[in-house]
Amino acid sequence: MTRVYNFSAGPAALPLEVLQQAQAEMLDWRGTGCSVMEVSHRGKEFEACNAEAEQDLRDLLNIPPHYKVLFLQGGASMQWSQILFNLCRDNAHGDFILTGEWTQRAVAEAKRLLPLWGGSVNIVASSEDKNFSYIPPESSWKRREDAAFMHICTNETIQGLEYGFVPQALGNVPLVADMSSHILSRPVDVSRYGLIYAGAQKNIGPAGVTIVIVREDLLGKARSDCPRMFDYQLMADNHSLLNTPPTFGIYLAGLVFQWLKRQGGLAVMEQRNIEKARLLYDYLDQSSFYYSPVNRADRSRMNVPFRIHDESLNEAFLKQSAAAGLVALKGHKAVGGMRASIYNAMPLAGVQALIAFMKEFEQSHG
Amino acid sequence: MTRVYNFSAGPAALPLEVLQQAQAEMLDWRGTGCSVMEVSHRGKEFEACNAEAEQDLRDLLNIPPHYKVLFLQGGASMQWSQILFNLCRDNAHGDFILTGEWTQRAVAEAKRLLPLWGGSVNIVASSEDKNFSYIPPESSWKRREDAAFMHICTNETIQGLEYGFVPQALGNVPLVADMSSHILSRPVDVSRYGLIYAGAQKNIGPAGVTIVIVREDLLGKARSDCPRMFDYQLMADNHSLLNTPPTFGIYLAGLVFQWLKRQGGLAVMEQRNIEKARLLYDYLDQSSFYYSPVNRADRSRMNVPFRIHDESLNEAFLKQSAAAGLVALKGHKAVGGMRASIYNAMPLAGVQALIAFMKEFEQSHG
Repeated sequence: MTRVYNFSAGPAALPLEVLQQAQAEMLDWRGTGCSVMEVSHRGKEFEACNAEAEQDLRDLLNIPPHYKVLFLQGGASMQWSQILFNLCRDNAHGDFILTGEWTQRAVAEAKRLLPLWGGSVNIVASSEDKNFSYIPPESSWKRREDAAFMHICTNETIQGLEYGFVPQALGNVPLVADMSSHILSRPVDVSRYGLIYAGAQKNIGPAGVTIVIVREDLLGKARSDCPRMFDYQLMADNHSLLNTPPTFGIYLAGLVFQWLKRQGGLAVMEQRNIEKARLLYDYLDQSSFYYSPVNRADRSRMNVPFRIHDESLNEAFLKQSAAAGLVALKGHKAVGGMRASIYNAMPLAGVQALIAFMKEFEQSHG
Repeated sequence: MTRVYNFSAGPAALPLEVLQQAQAEMLDWRGTGCSVMEVSHRGKEFEACNAEAEQDLRDLLNIPPHYKVLFLQGGASMQWSQILFNLCRDNAHGDFILTGEWTQRAVAEAKRLLPLWGGSVNIVASSEDKNFSYIPPESSWKRREDAAFMHICTNETIQGLEYGFVPQALGNVPLVADMSSHILSRPVDVSRYGLIYAGAQKNIGPAGVTIVIVREDLLGKARSDCPRMFDYQLMADNHSLLNTPPTFGIYLAGLVFQWLKRQGGLAVMEQRNIEKARLLYDYLDQSSFYYSPVNRADRSRMNVPFRIHDESLNEAFLKQSAAAGLVALKGHKAVGGMRASIYNAMPLAGVQALIAFMKEFEQSHG
């Protein structure tokens, strides 16, 4: 077996220990004589697995009891619609902060649906003027007091931006956050949010599970034309088992939660993630060969886009890094250059190996 | 390792060979140095995996080229809404044949949504009068010529009913079929259907993947308020990769498709399934201790509900069968008694072991 250092933005690397456990119990899970994929979601074994995963996530994020935890399907992209069907009756307005590709897509769906229902989209602030290289300062935001929600993406995977603060919505407007690409990388004060959502395939588990953490008072308000499987209230009432859930994905996410607990929890992970990110950004900042296109204060600890001043070297960089066992470093086509995604599962040694390679590459091409 | 004979209705048993392959390549898939869960869905390895899975499914079911194959999320339950958002503009009518729990639930969703859009639900026929123990004869059906679709469930998992014929919709009304619990168990003339859908967790792969096979002329007709991720046309245009798909589930379904091809394809599987089902039903029919509650002509080859005349013995039966390594035989609460689900992955030896146990149990309790 030759494992590589995998810098994929998602689906992304998983902790080796987790994969080894899944491998070991693939044919006989918890003494059932079956794979976890083969047991009923209504049986006591899977119900326990589901409940443990929820409890471990609650422990890790210190989720208050008046928040529901849902394991859903469809990815964060499905949530862009699902949130609207759950939080917006007719004539509802949605506040959005535009900071990159993912918020652009969320806005596009709201701009399509809300006007059909007599509502509208309000762009509170945007950093599109500078190619989404910064988080607009909160002092410039134009919030609506009557918004049904205010939506942010706390970490833009493609642009590599991360919020260093929790914004304040006006009055009782619930703050809705897409945390797909940095959830579980640091402690979060969940009580500041009305709803948090995240696709699993970056820092949680395999693609096909979406986590929604939602304050109870936001439940039970779905539109009458809300698809039944979209209704957060129904899902909450059924502990996410309204219909057959993605059992293997929930199981594997549960193994990741247990792994995080063994590491010492999110405060420990945050320290590791700060160290990994600092190492890489410090190296970029002292280099005259590479650079980071992102405003320093807003740089993501998880997704680190970087460029070579001489773009003609990109292809050689990607080819040689892959050959050296450092894979999936190509930047998203919307940004170009390179991107290293260094989620929880990326060990410090992986970042060190990347920097060592970058130095070598600079020496031979600089 | 002690593997059991697993009669779960779903998530259900998977072929042992498939699990063993998934286990063997869990840490290094196709030489990537990563698990299949850890690679980008946009990378060439996963795109090839996705395309192979689609082609193998096309080969197995002999799907005509003017049908699209989609790998979606959310289960068959999500399709109850998704079909409506895709096929029903305002004032649309849906035809349904009621044959059990699953069609009841599909009807409930249509009865909720269609009237909001000025449309209605038409129950073409129902076997509710006899506890869903038969398929209503086609001669009694009251179809609408102006229906947006006619919906059937070709195998009712809970009641254990299976269509032995392909019904005829009127005029150009597309026939929509939920085949979740018997897809791939027999050849199907796909060209008779407008849309076929199936949750994976019975005869395809792990929960979390839904297959939709849809005739091209039914695409591009989604309602304006259709959630973006629901739009079949968009999914088809993107080969199901509009957003991150459930990569592990598609991979595993692909392994099942390859396994089916190695067995000789669906004609061979049908012969095996006929043999397994005949063995079990013949035994039930000659017994004065057990019985099948289902009309003979309409009995499912996949899901075999059965009862003991003396219901007080149910608990002992379930306890002792489980102890003998024959698990998940409890009937659904809507029907009671027992149910043996004998999908493709259940070998003949498993059915023989069940019958041997049933004989023994009858001898000691009869």
